[in-house]
Amino acid sequence: MQTINASIVGGAGYTGGELLRILLQHPDVTINSVVSKSQAGNKISDFFTDLTGETDLIFTSTVDKKTDVLFLCLPHGESKHYLLKHPELASKKIIDLSRDFRLSNDALFNNKKFVYGLPELYRSDIAKADYIANPGCFATTIQLGLLPLAQKHELNQTVYVNAITGSTGAGQKPSDTTHYSWRHSNVSAYQLFNHPHVEEINQSLHHLQNSYHEQLVFVPQRGSFTRGIMATAMLQTKLSENEVLELYTNFYKEAAFTFVTNKAVDLKMVVNTNKCFIQLSKHKDQLVIISVIDNLLKGAAGQAVQNMNLMFGLEEKTALQLKCLTF
Amino acid sequence: MQTINASIVGGAGYTGGELLRILLQHPDVTINSVVSKSQAGNKISDFFTDLTGETDLIFTSTVDKKTDVLFLCLPHGESKHYLLKHPELASKKIIDLSRDFRLSNDALFNNKKFVYGLPELYRSDIAKADYIANPGCFATTIQLGLLPLAQKHELNQTVYVNAITGSTGAGQKPSDTTHYSWRHSNVSAYQLFNHPHVEEINQSLHHLQNSYHEQLVFVPQRGSFTRGIMATAMLQTKLSENEVLELYTNFYKEAAFTFVTNKAVDLKMVVNTNKCFIQLSKHKDQLVIISVIDNLLKGAAGQAVQNMNLMFGLEEKTALQLKCLTF
Amino acid sequence: MQTINASIVGGAGYTGGELLRILLQHPDVTINSVVSKSQAGNKISDFFTDLTGETDLIFTSTVDKKTDVLFLCLPHGESKHYLLKHPELASKKIIDLSRDFRLSNDALFNNKKFVYGLPELYRSDIAKADYIANPGCFATTIQLGLLPLAQKHELNQTVYVNAITGSTGAGQKPSDTTHYSWRHSNVSAYQLFNHPHVEEINQSLHHLQNSYHEQLVFVPQRGSFTRGIMATAMLQTKLSENEVLELYTNFYKEAAFTFVTNKAVDLKMVVNTNKCFIQLSKHKDQLVIISVIDNLLKGAAGQAVQNMNLMFGLEEKTALQLKCLTF
Amino acid sequence: MQTINASIVGGAGYTGGELLRILLQHPDVTINSVVSKSQAGNKISDFFTDLTGETDLIFTSTVDKKTDVLFLCLPHGESKHYLLKHPELASKKIIDLSRDFRLSNDALFNNKKFVYGLPELYRSDIAKADYIANPGCFATTIQLGLLPLAQKHELNQTVYVNAITGSTGAGQKPSDTTHYSWRHSNVSAYQLFNHPHVEEINQSLHHLQNSYHEQLVFVPQRGSFTRGIMATAMLQTKLSENEVLELYTNFYKEAAFTFVTNKAVDLKMVVNTNKCFIQLSKHKDQLVIISVIDNLLKGAAGQAVQNMNLMFGLEEKTALQLKCLTF
Repeated sequence: MQTINASIVGGAGYTGGELLRILLQHPDVTINSVVSKSQAGNKISDFFTDLTGETDLIFTSTVDKKTDVLFLCLPHGESKHYLLKHPELASKKIIDLSRDFRLSNDALFNNKKFVYGLPELYRSDIAKADYIANPGCFATTIQLGLLPLAQKHELNQTVYVNAITGSTGAGQKPSDTTHYSWRHSNVSAYQLFNHPHVEEINQSLHHLQNSYHEQLVFVPQRGSFTRGIMATAMLQTKLSENEVLELYTNFYKEAAFTFVTNKAVDLKMVVNTNKCFIQLSKHKDQLVIISVIDNLLKGAAGQAVQNMNLMFGLEEKTALQLKCLTF
Repeated sequence: MQTINASIVGGAGYTGGELLRILLQHPDVTINSVVSKSQAGNKISDFFTDLTGETDLIFTSTVDKKTDVLFLCLPHGESKHYLLKHPELASKKIIDLSRDFRLSNDALFNNKKFVYGLPELYRSDIAKADYIANPGCFATTIQLGLLPLAQKHELNQTVYVNAITGSTGAGQKPSDTTHYSWRHSNVSAYQLFNHPHVEEINQSLHHLQNSYHEQLVFVPQRGSFTRGIMATAMLQTKLSENEVLELYTNFYKEAAFTFVTNKAVDLKMVVNTNKCFIQLSKHKDQLVIISVIDNLLKGAAGQAVQNMNLMFGLEEKTALQLKCLTF
Repeated sequence: MQTINASIVGGAGYTGGELLRILLQHPDVTINSVVSKSQAGNKISDFFTDLTGETDLIFTSTVDKKTDVLFLCLPHGESKHYLLKHPELASKKIIDLSRDFRLSNDALFNNKKFVYGLPELYRSDIAKADYIANPGCFATTIQLGLLPLAQKHELNQTVYVNAITGSTGAGQKPSDTTHYSWRHSNVSAYQLFNHPHVEEINQSLHHLQNSYHEQLVFVPQRGSFTRGIMATAMLQTKLSENEVLELYTNFYKEAAFTFVTNKAVDLKMVVNTNKCFIQLSKHKDQLVIISVIDNLLKGAAGQAVQNMNLMFGLEEKTALQLKCLTF
Repeated sequence: MQTINASIVGGAGYTGGELLRILLQHPDVTINSVVSKSQAGNKISDFFTDLTGETDLIFTSTVDKKTDVLFLCLPHGESKHYLLKHPELASKKIIDLSRDFRLSNDALFNNKKFVYGLPELYRSDIAKADYIANPGCFATTIQLGLLPLAQKHELNQTVYVNAITGSTGAGQKPSDTTHYSWRHSNVSAYQLFNHPHVEEINQSLHHLQNSYHEQLVFVPQRGSFTRGIMATAMLQTKLSENEVLELYTNFYKEAAFTFVTNKAVDLKMVVNTNKCFIQLSKHKDQLVIISVIDNLLKGAAGQAVQNMNLMFGLEEKTALQLKCLTF
């Protein structure tokens, strides 16, 4: 097979760096430009020093013309702006990792619709898509925990979700809440009731279950670790534990990276991988669903490559069978 | 005032050690025996090396006769056994940090009732008590977050609680889930639906609100820090945010260590102190209550000394105005 | 005794905050102004939220006139500037926590000399001083590890020192090397061969041993914790382990917070206290000296209060018998 | 190429698990037995839950007969014993990860010599070997930092080495020093002057420089992270920084995973990879050498696979181009 020429815009951030680490090992991909406003002209391995010995590439200020697929790793709000400023890129396959095109109302560009890039929900659409809106990290974790219930129209009560995330979720720019002295050994809640990912979660759930009416209470929390999200969803349901297990197992039976279990999961089972594990527990009429992902991989760069693999007809797991950190 | 002679049984565990660190600085207390089966005969400062320079005491195998107040820091199940084996101790004031006497049905000993030692709920009873059952760490955190609602009979829906605890909650004996390699940067849930503290929480809530019927869904989680518990309670209520704030502020207006706020709290605000902070947030008909304590202090040894201060008519905060770790 | 009126300039930084936490509990001190350019007018407990319930003080923009003792918690270089701009403060007792007056050549101000505030070395001078230059955190740790050898003129070989520090040593302003994502689980060296504390260490060692000639190789490292410094000094000596132990024990026999041992020490023995522990080990002709302190306390705010106690004739340990974090 | 049948003995420990994670992705390897006394009969993915979805293998109690290469991941002392008890395994290629065969005097088995498996030193011998003694983790880090100097006969002074290691270095069995409550945010030294890895380091250095006489002072330390070793070696030398850089660059010019730099390195540059980075800094006549590896990979399982690749004539990096954790 011919190599796929890939470019990354916003290559000097966390997700850009993770994309690089994955794509440098992808057998079917050649990275032909890594655009960074702040680092243009500098060696990539001088910035991401762990890549010493793996690449001689240099950050550039523009996207190479031969590019087949473009990954946009820009801050929320800037992706749309960047594409409008660079109409010549509209002919490329585009995978956008920002929020800009995730909601149906915002998804149109150049008369084509961005497909929401959650393979567990839209695999066949993704395979045919030119443009992909890559889901948010919290949004991926929580949706994977709730989609099967929505499909069966079982989301008929308030769903309470507590989810804790690592510091990489806050991005690379230093701030008070990513200061080591403050965050170490700490826990804190933020954006109570108004986290921006709630909208894309509601959109997907509503897509599967028309009667679902945004009855999600979401408390995001900052944890003292760098990677990973654990979401705990709690709700009332009449389904038995076995029915729930069967429902989920069936829903994810062809998923490449999502696994269902009734045993205890922990966050580090997925750190540095593209996997999602979902633990299901039922007591009386109450169901607890715990889902875990790596926010930078299944929650960002890994899922982006998974989408690329689907778009180009490659085996879905290519370059994504990553060694788990475990410890 | 005459000094209070205090003894600790089970002095070589986490809560025993914390009691020692507090009582050694207590102006009204003399520690006259620290009993430890495993360490009897050894210098305390050789075991708790941080206490070097602060005490020449030696662990003993029996309680000194002059003891006025006895702190039992034994594993759950062993306190009752110890008291039965040592009837001569029944005449002392007793503060038991295990679960053995917390539930009404189990609280009778020597024809006297153990008072549940939560000063925010039973201050005047504690002041008159001879025997105190010191509350559990999760139980303290969650109750302080819910008591005012129960008092106002506003617990009429399922209450969903997610609470994350530090590794000291698991005790001193090394285990798989306190192994550094596993726990570091990890999160995991455990004892879903059957944590032993739920019973004492239900007992207190029911005491205040007769109509409350154990509708608590509790997901305990292990965090990657050593000290502290953050409990997030979520429920539906018709009370407005202001009504809730007023209710809580009023309920805790005489509490020595419990503070109510509508600003963001974080775990490290209480680490190494005897304080509890409660954050209240309301959106539409949903209320989120976040409460934080140090599990070894307000959740164990600190609250025990607070109870002792009340029992002996001392200022409630004596020896408990501890410097916060903060960072 | 009459209360001491204390003011803090630079009260909204890490060391300012620690001073506040200590002085609020000091029985002989009234805090009468806490100056902060950025926070003037704001409630202290809104900024240091852990102090909720402990103070109603408000940050100010100027030092109160009744002040008896002034703590300067300004960035290096700004203390001298501040005093020059405020000549009215020259009549106060001053304890400067910056580097500005630590070196003999820079120590003169208003015709009076700043005394180097290391009580283990200059206790009697401190007691008589008006101005104190509070030592650096690395400087305190390393000096306490080497002073007895210098006193005995036994520093005749290169001394190799590796010291690892917590993130609070880097100050409150967020930066790349205090970003949680980078620092967590990481170790790194910095300012190899040119750390600014080396000069004050050399000055003290030379003061005790004329023949000492700056033969210190110092590798500072950043650790993945918030508080504490562990310094490991290694050198050749003909003294036996017992001679070294006796030398150190004797040197520190009247030290209020510094303890010598031949058992293993660990960093958390001193975290959140004003103590220093020194571990000595000898093998053949090689001596290893491990010293540990809390960089914000014995390495800054704690030692500053210790100096204040000495300057005002108070018991040296007043308000400094802090509960160790331990875990 | 025909597949290599690989077996692991002691497959339920940390290094066994890491080997599994690597070999499951190795294109030229089939794992045909994973022996574990404690787990025999259990599914591997029930024990290493992160491997769910990647293997259906079951732990066994004996080595499969078709095995081509055997990895021994047994505790120190048990490898030799195991091989003596199983003479039928002597005909296999053997890679032993314990200390049992690392020292020349102990290296003979079945009339064949175990080759010390440090590819940077013995690549061609490894390629021809049947038996490999895989180096220790500290030993690998420190040797890679010193070998070029030994080769040039420049180790003529005492070498002072401080090295800090993650908790996985202490193995899987829970203990007091791997208890999360104790180790978190802590640093401590251990086995001062008598760490068992010193012997193999001395052996290699002496092999390159006859005049080297064990003048290594080694202070191992426990850090608050799970993976990685940073070794800081300090010594006097007349070589200039440029001469040292050239010497090291030249020595490692064909190394697959070892890189030399005069820029700052940090531990996380190598975590979850098989790489080693070496940072060199010179000031006056003093040289500081900082080397970093992942103790479970380049310090154990990764290097074992690197050795296997060499023994079977495969590309040295096969299955070892692992995605760095970075954050």
